[in-house]
Amino acid sequence: MAQAQKITPRATDFSEWYNDVIMQAELADYSPVRGCMVIRPHGYRIWELMQGALDDMFRATGHRNAYFPLFIPQSFLAREAEHVEGFAKEVAIVTHTRLRATGKAGAEAIAVDPESRLEEPLVVRPTSETIIYAMFAKWIQSYRDLPLLLNQWCNVVRWELRTRLFLRTTEFLWQEGHTAHATEAEAEAEARQMLGVYRKFQEEWMAMPVLTGVKTESEKFAGAVRTYAVEALMQDNKALQAGTSHNLGQNFARAFNVQYQTAAGGLEFVWSTSWGVSTRLIGGLIMSHSDDNGLVCPPKLAPTQVVIVPIWKSDQERAQVLGVGGEVKVALTQAGIRVELDTRENVKPGAKYFEWEAKGVPLRLEIGPRDVAAGQVVMARRTGGKAAVKLEGGALATALRAALDEIQAALFRAAKERREAHTIRGVTKPQFIEFMRNVGGFAYGGFCGSPDCEAEIKQQTAATVRVLPDAEFRSPEAPRTCMWCGRPSVAEAVWAQAY
Amino acid sequence: MAQAQKITPRATDFSEWYNDVIMQAELADYSPVRGCMVIRPHGYRIWELMQGALDDMFRATGHRNAYFPLFIPQSFLAREAEHVEGFAKEVAIVTHTRLRATGKAGAEAIAVDPESRLEEPLVVRPTSETIIYAMFAKWIQSYRDLPLLLNQWCNVVRWELRTRLFLRTTEFLWQEGHTAHATEAEAEAEARQMLGVYRKFQEEWMAMPVLTGVKTESEKFAGAVRTYAVEALMQDNKALQAGTSHNLGQNFARAFNVQYQTAAGGLEFVWSTSWGVSTRLIGGLIMSHSDDNGLVCPPKLAPTQVVIVPIWKSDQERAQVLGVGGEVKVALTQAGIRVELDTRENVKPGAKYFEWEAKGVPLRLEIGPRDVAAGQVVMARRTGGKAAVKLEGGALATALRAALDEIQAALFRAAKERREAHTIRGVTKPQFIEFMRNVGGFAYGGFCGSPDCEAEIKQQTAATVRVLPDAEFRSPEAPRTCMWCGRPSVAEAVWAQAY
Repeated sequence: MAQAQKITPRATDFSEWYNDVIMQAELADYSPVRGCMVIRPHGYRIWELMQGALDDMFRATGHRNAYFPLFIPQSFLAREAEHVEGFAKEVAIVTHTRLRATGKAGAEAIAVDPESRLEEPLVVRPTSETIIYAMFAKWIQSYRDLPLLLNQWCNVVRWELRTRLFLRTTEFLWQEGHTAHATEAEAEAEARQMLGVYRKFQEEWMAMPVLTGVKTESEKFAGAVRTYAVEALMQDNKALQAGTSHNLGQNFARAFNVQYQTAAGGLEFVWSTSWGVSTRLIGGLIMSHSDDNGLVCPPKLAPTQVVIVPIWKSDQERAQVLGVGGEVKVALTQAGIRVELDTRENVKPGAKYFEWEAKGVPLRLEIGPRDVAAGQVVMARRTGGKAAVKLEGGALATALRAALDEIQAALFRAAKERREAHTIRGVTKPQFIEFMRNVGGFAYGGFCGSPDCEAEIKQQTAATVRVLPDAEFRSPEAPRTCMWCGRPSVAEAVWAQAY
Repeated sequence: MAQAQKITPRATDFSEWYNDVIMQAELADYSPVRGCMVIRPHGYRIWELMQGALDDMFRATGHRNAYFPLFIPQSFLAREAEHVEGFAKEVAIVTHTRLRATGKAGAEAIAVDPESRLEEPLVVRPTSETIIYAMFAKWIQSYRDLPLLLNQWCNVVRWELRTRLFLRTTEFLWQEGHTAHATEAEAEAEARQMLGVYRKFQEEWMAMPVLTGVKTESEKFAGAVRTYAVEALMQDNKALQAGTSHNLGQNFARAFNVQYQTAAGGLEFVWSTSWGVSTRLIGGLIMSHSDDNGLVCPPKLAPTQVVIVPIWKSDQERAQVLGVGGEVKVALTQAGIRVELDTRENVKPGAKYFEWEAKGVPLRLEIGPRDVAAGQVVMARRTGGKAAVKLEGGALATALRAALDEIQAALFRAAKERREAHTIRGVTKPQFIEFMRNVGGFAYGGFCGSPDCEAEIKQQTAATVRVLPDAEFRSPEAPRTCMWCGRPSVAEAVWAQAY
């Protein structure tokens, strides 16, 4: 009980609950560096599993990984006007390269050596378009060099004042895809394709349903022609932008003079895209499924899918249950299931249950002396329900695999039902205000397209346009007027309060 | 021919050759940021294969991956006296967090905003001991929390004035293991174990034979009690330090107050280790095996192990050889071999051969119309030799697998023979001077242990003690006197000029 009681219930304080789940599951911790987090092994393993699945999908669509410098010369950022405007106020800047002894004691024993000042300051990458386009200009000569399809897994830094573990940190880990194409149509298809990859990953691996669509002008990436996004609804009915894919047109190609010789012999600027998802996804995973007992992790991304807890009183029983537990572990590992056997002597089974629950392990197998005698184990689901399962042959692995698949599907279904229950369509202005104040969720309505309207809505309700949704998500009947100002609607929009 | 001629022969200029191999194989490129490199997809894939193999070995020895912040508060570095002394002169320091518009044009349009100055500067990690021990102090309470066995894959920055691709760059990628133990003996065993892991990886995967041993006081890690290293000999007879493993004693535990309650109830500082290898290994791999035609890559780390080059004149032949090539590709992929089919229309077979040779692909399969008719392919080894291989059944995959294993073993054997041919034992001072001037390699001799002797040798011959070798590498008879000064020898040492 001790463990579980440390978690604030969602109903009491969602934000506290979120932090408590992270601490209890040992996913991450605060660091002594303002705004920077430590990702602990359990959280980092989830990230590695995410990376593995995404990387396979990137490779299958023809992308190759590379690595570009952490530092960007200050002047590079200035080359694309919107881009620098978007990032100038939140960067870490390296200005010196040496420390020197001061002769003082303690923390003041060293100081920055003023003589080591750099001629041109270096910006720690907030995103890598500028440094990558400088290289594209060198590598791309002819249409034969296109398309160039790269991806980078790395850390980036954006100086944030208000940070939250995983959701918004000064440093975070991410992937950034960067591609160059011969035609506008190819770049548009690529941006669309990668949005689809993100959606597939988030729905099939994270069990997190998402909306897809295009961002409004005021929400698009600094330097993009068009930004597409995937948006998910969290348990507190706030939206999470879970990934973006940008059609950059020829903006960066012009800024960095990335031209190619066409098959006909002419010279043209390349058309390009960039797209990224980050460790923020772990925050999305937590807030999609977890409960007041801790993390609930979709089986496909669970570092440990099955934990075996042996139960004994006497030494003889101990030898027996550990023996069977060990055999089960070997058999399940061979069947491709990620399994742990909790052999700790000094922790009671009940305490182990709570601990593994907090960590989000989807299935627990209890093995006591009576189970051994009956040739069975008790299988308990993290999300509720217990059943005895026979040990013989491959029956156990088959039953566990089926249970894991069921849990994965059920989590997705539940999250989708929750989203639908918190979706309102064809809203009027009074409904919208009421919904954003007392309920929360996705509100669909007509939008005049005016940034002024957008700003006023944000100011009065804290809601922003998450996307102008793709056809599949749009309401059967297109709205005629802007739900806020009553002028003609140019597109249906989805609003929500967002992280 | 065009491709191969761009590579300077080793005999002409080894250093030029090294850069040419990297450029021709498209492993890396210079970036616009001084001292920082771009790792291109072919080079990055080698790094990923290295990471995969090492990570499996780290996991098998009980380590878990985590992620700690990029930034270290300046005052943290100062806490361990030797440590700060070792790194103070080569760090990147973040002092500001905002850029502002200046109203000027072009590169000067933005400048560092002086009002965004940080109270305490942040150092970009040159290594992470200090930030990690700050967290260890929080996580470690009792002997039950030990051992704590962590590893981190990340980028680090050391401000270097003279850089070389992969071997010495301002930013590089590496892994750093950090472990805490209850006893001195356990920490020592851990440092030793990880040295063994590095040796195994470098010999079995990189086909690069290494010496193991301990560093002298003047060459040890800043803050360590003892530094162990693996050392390899490159083709120019210079040594490369290919990995280090440090027994840190209680130095960092004391600096960061990392104490634990013993089983008996007392309070003790933990004993700790750290160990790392970096993208420098790619430089070692290049200089161990490659030739004047480009990269030679050990099969286990080759991004592409087999390339299929179809040869045709007519459209009919083209359909035929591409058909068979495609089938071969599928069959080999299913057999777990990394294979590419080069279907490019506008490149002649000969040009393809040179290109794939430069990239170090171990095996090339040529498929022409006559081969198809004879039910065979021609298998050419990157390191020399051609043979026809039958296509039927699983014969091809079996033959290729055997050839790849043979190549892997032959590369290791050749590198070891080369090292032995450039090893001299029981040297006298005149021999030593002559050897370092005209031959180069590993020189074994008696050493008095004096840093003065070490400094004088370095100054006069540019050679340094690489290690005091482990028993397995020592000469049958222990030297009695220092080969340089004639005083009694305290240990046999191995000297070489080094990267």
